[in-house]
Amino acid sequence: MEAIWLEDHKLELKTDLPVPDAPGEALVRVLRAGICNTDLELVKGYYPYTGVLGHEFVGMVERGPEEITGKRVVGEINATCGGCRFCRSAAPTHCDDRTVLGIVGRHGAFARFLSLPAKNLHPVPDGISTDAAVFAEPLAAALEIQEQVAVGRGAKVLQVGDGKLGQLVGQTLLATGCDLSVVGRHPAKLARLERHGARTIDAGDVDAKSFDIAVEVTGNEEGFALAQRALRPRGTLVMKSTYAGRLSLDAASIVVDELTVVGSRCGPMGKAVEALGAGLEVEDLIEARYPLARGLDAFEHAGRRGALKVLLDVT
Amino acid sequence: MEAIWLEDHKLELKTDLPVPDAPGEALVRVLRAGICNTDLELVKGYYPYTGVLGHEFVGMVERGPEEITGKRVVGEINATCGGCRFCRSAAPTHCDDRTVLGIVGRHGAFARFLSLPAKNLHPVPDGISTDAAVFAEPLAAALEIQEQVAVGRGAKVLQVGDGKLGQLVGQTLLATGCDLSVVGRHPAKLARLERHGARTIDAGDVDAKSFDIAVEVTGNEEGFALAQRALRPRGTLVMKSTYAGRLSLDAASIVVDELTVVGSRCGPMGKAVEALGAGLEVEDLIEARYPLARGLDAFEHAGRRGALKVLLDVT
Ligand SMILES: [Zn+2]
Ligand SMILES: [Zn+2]
Ligand SMILES: [Zn+2]
Ligand SMILES: [Zn+2]
Repeated sequence: MEAIWLEDHKLELKTDLPVPDAPGEALVRVLRAGICNTDLELVKGYYPYTGVLGHEFVGMVERGPEEITGKRVVGEINATCGGCRFCRSAAPTHCDDRTVLGIVGRHGAFARFLSLPAKNLHPVPDGISTDAAVFAEPLAAALEIQEQVAVGRGAKVLQVGDGKLGQLVGQTLLATGCDLSVVGRHPAKLARLERHGARTIDAGDVDAKSFDIAVEVTGNEEGFALAQRALRPRGTLVMKSTYAGRLSLDAASIVVDELTVVGSRCGPMGKAVEALGAGLEVEDLIEARYPLARGLDAFEHAGRRGALKVLLDVT
Repeated sequence: MEAIWLEDHKLELKTDLPVPDAPGEALVRVLRAGICNTDLELVKGYYPYTGVLGHEFVGMVERGPEEITGKRVVGEINATCGGCRFCRSAAPTHCDDRTVLGIVGRHGAFARFLSLPAKNLHPVPDGISTDAAVFAEPLAAALEIQEQVAVGRGAKVLQVGDGKLGQLVGQTLLATGCDLSVVGRHPAKLARLERHGARTIDAGDVDAKSFDIAVEVTGNEEGFALAQRALRPRGTLVMKSTYAGRLSLDAASIVVDELTVVGSRCGPMGKAVEALGAGLEVEDLIEARYPLARGLDAFEHAGRRGALKVLLDVT
């Protein structure tokens, strides 16, 4: 089958890969897939990974348990052992022995077919388009913030970063009724979040020590520093990004102001599907679509400064 | 009066300072005072401060409200405005307009007399010796950890650092019934914590991703890195130290493992006095005592590698 293969920092369109055949797992025919910043970081070689890329997808179950066969599904990307301390303690995304679709030890979604345990698959209700459903995975990551931090109605929240994940983060934060200000670099993206109810603000106009919560979605040091500076004493900084390597920060102020810093990764797929079913607007985030055979062009496009969501139309 | 004065990174014994006379505040005759790492950092010039140093003290109220006059007291070191958002929201140690005894905008305790608002003063019950009571302030800082993080009975906790604050941190952590391991550099100090029930462990033997909570009491980058590496996914790292400047850390693992990092500063004085009243052993931490007139020698001693608590006998 065709697939986008990563090896030694190089992407390649392979055409002769075998269809996955993992015993005990469901076989999914991929319909659509999305490229995210983690994919771009993987290509840069920050995490070591060799294999088929891709973890945002919608597919049709080709072979699996009867109740989902022939249905459209999205998938929880962490495949877990079921028996370790984290699987047993309701934190399976941290499973000691996990593989992660297109990221760690498991071929991904930029392919004709993928394989995942059936328990990872969530059927997509008819009311959700395939284009919208492809956002379920990053939307779950955005919703993870609310699993970790209580975002109260009226809480003063600063979001730093307005990219494609930032758009979903902003929309899900606004759904809590918080008072959201966003710092970003792209007028059109800031305008989109304003339409959803956010206030946009210049980095230079952010009042120090004035926000209850700051969500950092840039993955860079300046973004972190701005988020930290904006927090009131005892405020909470959420790191919602893929960080490449180390970060240098002002440790003294974390102690003096008793700040809390929380790392945030994968989130609740079920809630993401629910939010899409309730009509959360995501399809306007699609910037371009490419057939799988032009996957390398799709990556080139996704890597352009300021690009929103680039999709692969697999079928 | 005599006092230890800090100006331009230089300590000096002054003999001609006026006795404090702040309207509306209590006047306290200092009996005993302790030197802590924050004092040593202030001398190094990390925080800008000019004035009388010292914030750990026991004194006798010389002038103030009747119910405390003539009594021994310890003092909450943050003097607050009473009206700002933090004073009103039960977080007065973060008062926007605070002064801090011997640290920010307020002369400290290494002097014959000091002045503090009467509301800051806690009477010392007769059963607590003056030598023990001088530990109330750092003990409160140690107890602050439990105000911020739920330390469950049986929780696996790693403490990195065995210095004078680390000793109090270890003792208060052990009181929770947690399973405490300590990494340190000084056999005698580690042995003291072992006597209180801790396990000591070599840095090289700390299992990665195995602790629920890690408390960093070294203030340096290696200590932080060890604490971080030791944490299980979704674990909590408490920064319980005075950090000089910036810190470089592994940001990717904070996100991937969804760690929480919490800065921790001043704590509940009332609970500290209670713990001393209940017999918490602290007097064996006193390494040396000097009269106020030899305060500069006391600082030289406190600055020696591995020194425990050095006291100033003021009266
Ligand atoms: Zn992603
Ligand atoms: Zn597991
Ligand atoms: Zn101190
Ligand atoms: Zn105040």
